[in-house]
Amino acid sequence: MSAISKASRASLVDQVVGQMEALIDGGEWPVGERIPTEMELVGEFEVSRNTIREATRALVHAGLLQSRQGSGTYVCSSSVLEAAIRKRVDRADVLDTLEVRHALEREAARLAAVRRNASDLEEMQSALIACKEMLSAGDPQGYMSADLALHRAIVRASHNPVLIDLYGHLIDPLESSIRNILDATADQSGHRDVHDALVEAIVRQDPDGAMDAVNAYIHRFKDTLLHR
Amino acid sequence: MSAISKASRASLVDQVVGQMEALIDGGEWPVGERIPTEMELVGEFEVSRNTIREATRALVHAGLLQSRQGSGTYVCSSSVLEAAIRKRVDRADVLDTLEVRHALEREAARLAAVRRNASDLEEMQSALIACKEMLSAGDPQGYMSADLALHRAIVRASHNPVLIDLYGHLIDPLESSIRNILDATADQSGHRDVHDALVEAIVRQDPDGAMDAVNAYIHRFKDTLLHR
Repeated sequence: MSAISKASRASLVDQVVGQMEALIDGGEWPVGERIPTEMELVGEFEVSRNTIREATRALVHAGLLQSRQGSGTYVCSSSVLEAAIRKRVDRADVLDTLEVRHALEREAARLAAVRRNASDLEEMQSALIACKEMLSAGDPQGYMSADLALHRAIVRASHNPVLIDLYGHLIDPLESSIRNILDATADQSGHRDVHDALVEAIVRQDPDGAMDAVNAYIHRFKDTLLHR
Repeated sequence: MSAISKASRASLVDQVVGQMEALIDGGEWPVGERIPTEMELVGEFEVSRNTIREATRALVHAGLLQSRQGSGTYVCSSSVLEAAIRKRVDRADVLDTLEVRHALEREAARLAAVRRNASDLEEMQSALIACKEMLSAGDPQGYMSADLALHRAIVRASHNPVLIDLYGHLIDPLESSIRNILDATADQSGHRDVHDALVEAIVRQDPDGAMDAVNAYIHRFKDTLLHR
């Protein structure tokens, strides 16, 4: 292969990789779904099968795609950052990741108290109601999901896109580790109060009160985890 | 290509990618240096030139390697996580990244106050002395480096490897953005006191005092940045 055709081959693969990343990032290729076959992609991108194959493998290495023997290629992460954080969290101690999560939540609560708007407050309030309903219903799996939705709403109310991305990428793999080690039927009574104080502090725009509420929540959560 | 040789080709590329990642991760291929030529790698890994080429391109896409026209291929990040965070920070607003940095520093200071050992304290003290020397010498570039060394020492004293990794990957690209926007000759007087209070709180094992000192430091730093 000449130097020129080598370079153009590389840039063609780059282009296809970029287009595939855009499809994943934009949700046209959603996480968990199978992407079109090699032959379909050859038609779609109008490049050779080898170029498609190499672009696909590059995205497999980057952690965005996963090849399943005999079944096809699936989207497993929405971005390289998400894949990289997932990999790091998967080989970390749960308590270490939890400390990072809490660092981000504390700052998010502080910022949310300053920056929250009407629609942020609405999301938080309805997540808080869902938490209470799941507690009354005695549904621990439902409670975990509602709790997560509330924390995500608070982080979104920080209006800091870097914080939102890092938190979002950290929370999914962490949540599955926690579900694995923590009995989902663990006693959640009392958690209600901590959430109330947190949302109330954000409503009355009290950054210090919001951080205090996160600290109280963290303390209780670590206790539950350590004495499981 | 038959299905079998397709699979073995892919797994051969995977193996070479894994070996190259290990060389980068282990520092045998240090960041900033040129990696061996394609022909040298063919000899070293005992695989075809196409396999080397594809493995190299996969690592270029992952952000670990960079091809420079006519000059060769260079290591640009020590891990996929570092490359992905760098990319995210490069397209972020500096103030947003700064808020994430401070979230991590606040938790690190809290943990350092609880977990610091003798050698952590030694590192912190000598970084603090370096900060003071740079201030007296009126060397703003030197001060920035000493300041960074102090914060890194505090984060290491958290003994949380996830926190240490995220902080380390975030701080390098952030630091270059700050150097770009902040006049390096900006007035640093008064910063000394904030550092003293932070290190003193960690020495006397006072987690709340350490967090308060970080909050004071953050406040002053944001002010400097907003009123530049």
